Amino acid sequence: MASPHGADPITELITTYNELNSHIITELDEEPSPLEFMRFVAKNTPFVVRGAAANWKATQTWTSKFLTSHLADETVNVAVTPAGNADAPTTYKDGSLVFAKPWEEDQPFPEFLNYVIQQENGQAVDSGEIRYAQTQNDNLRNEYASLFSHVQQDIPFARIALEQESPDAINLWIGNSHSVTALHKDNYENLYVQVLGQKHFVLLPPHCQPCVNEQTLKPMQYHRTQPQKPNDEVLELRPDDNDESGGNGTIPFATWDPDRPLENATAYSYLAEPVRLTLWPGDMLYLPCMWYHKVSQSCFPNDICVAVNYWYDMDFAGPLYPLSNFVRAVNPNSHNR
Amino acid sequence: MASPHGADPITELITTYNELNSHIITELDEEPSPLEFMRFVAKNTPFVVRGAAANWKATQTWTSKFLTSHLADETVNVAVTPAGNADAPTTYKDGSLVFAKPWEEDQPFPEFLNYVIQQENGQAVDSGEIRYAQTQNDNLRNEYASLFSHVQQDIPFARIALEQESPDAINLWIGNSHSVTALHKDNYENLYVQVLGQKHFVLLPPHCQPCVNEQTLKPMQYHRTQPQKPNDEVLELRPDDNDESGGNGTIPFATWDPDRPLENATAYSYLAEPVRLTLWPGDMLYLPCMWYHKVSQSCFPNDICVAVNYWYDMDFAGPLYPLSNFVRAVNPNSHNR
Repeated sequence: MASPHGADPITELITTYNELNSHIITELDEEPSPLEFMRFVAKNTPFVVRGAAANWKATQTWTSKFLTSHLADETVNVAVTPAGNADAPTTYKDGSLVFAKPWEEDQPFPEFLNYVIQQENGQAVDSGEIRYAQTQNDNLRNEYASLFSHVQQDIPFARIALEQESPDAINLWIGNSHSVTALHKDNYENLYVQVLGQKHFVLLPPHCQPCVNEQTLKPMQYHRTQPQKPNDEVLELRPDDNDESGGNGTIPFATWDPDRPLENATAYSYLAEPVRLTLWPGDMLYLPCMWYHKVSQSCFPNDICVAVNYWYDMDFAGPLYPLSNFVRAVNPNSHNR
Repeated sequence: MASPHGADPITELITTYNELNSHIITELDEEPSPLEFMRFVAKNTPFVVRGAAANWKATQTWTSKFLTSHLADETVNVAVTPAGNADAPTTYKDGSLVFAKPWEEDQPFPEFLNYVIQQENGQAVDSGEIRYAQTQNDNLRNEYASLFSHVQQDIPFARIALEQESPDAINLWIGNSHSVTALHKDNYENLYVQVLGQKHFVLLPPHCQPCVNEQTLKPMQYHRTQPQKPNDEVLELRPDDNDESGGNGTIPFATWDPDRPLENATAYSYLAEPVRLTLWPGDMLYLPCMWYHKVSQSCFPNDICVAVNYWYDMDFAGPLYPLSNFVRAVNPNSHNR
């Protein structure tokens, strides 16, 4: 893009930020005070607190055996995909890139968890599909309410600093290493706590929109089908029934994967300096609002991955939200919503 | 400017910000806690604390008589201009707009103050020139050190929140209603305290750069001359001797005055919604870093205007500094530095 100064403004933006900010995440040994937290919010900069939740009942007591027993009679919503690609850019059979939503179905919790563990252990499982309990609808205060007392009701330093009585949502995530959450961003301040297994985060600040190759993708959803022949697909992508625009809408979504930097790259992708970190059980990540994040996971042997995250409403006042939109509007490769 | 979306991105930026932020300043009854202050820093949003400094010794005891007596034997640096236009865009005799720096000279303090008061009272004064003690070089801890104990050494909520042992500079301002500080911005977090008289602020956030018609102006400085004839100018603009670029440099400076909105306007000026406020003695303003501010003043009868401001280093980390530069770089009317 031409600039009145000769230099490319987007290049200058990303490189200036990189010069003034480290891509090595700040590691804290203990939870910040509300004031210390607010300094990170002010800079829209992530940090990790090692061991912040090490003494939570969840971290101390949850195992796959405990969860199976505790939720023996529960039925839970499960996201099912062929490749762990819930809410992810996916190549459709006609060659086009679409936004794939998972098939969702209710399963008895013990059956769900047993499947996740067997798959992680390398045992043969039906069809090889990937199952992930990942409803991001405040499920820990609803579907999994019987587990809620095992975690903190909120994150006190965030509640005080952000002046919010309660998180907007508290979500529980249960899956195995086959599930990956594709690079995306949320309009929330996010506190993310690891309980079992590891989460691997790749983070990019909001102004890196020109790096992520946002495309407008047609939303589709996997549907479980009854195969007629042995090789028929069990999960079939179909236009999204729940698409509020009546099937004509598209979803703007990042299609660049920082872990495959040469594929789907834009002219700016090479400027990105992702923040990379791994959460261990008991660790807590502050993921600032509007940051792009890709999340993958590793399980310890014979185990599962479990995490809890707290979403606090972001503050749309101040300059960051309009300025982040401005970067998108100026980027010549952005697509109309 | 063309946008990939059709709408003009700069227009969208300014109007989105205006929709999400009030141009009515927040008024506090008491000083904020460090955490409360940090919430404003995070939003890069100003506030005023009415009466915050009402009990300071300066506010309680400073009068023109007291200052004349207290500084009876002192010599101080005085900025002298023909029209109160120190550091201001000014029309040169060839019709061009230049950046006028004041003539600076040392004067006995009682003589300086007497001049300022007489002029404010409407009494005839030599040449009508405007005198303003406004050295912004930490003068309250140097030139006026004998007065420093009459004000707070720092602003505790800012010191704690910003993690700075001491302000970078503490400046004393002494003048009358004839001095105006032209619209400009500083890379400092600013706490501004009124002691005598009133200050009238007009404020614009950093992303309003496209509204202020930044031009590159040739720096010039007033020089006191010995007039040969009665009508000769006493203060003559000459190329700036101290110009570090050897006289070839230019200074990028706002040339739009929100109080004369139709003059020197850009295509975006009409979108600006300035924050306007008046400080009374004892009031304290938080002026966030990089905000444009124009400052004028009113004196009470037979009196002077006195203020003190505390500059704290801004944090260049985080997205605001690079994003503010980005707006300037994208604005097609910005000029090369």
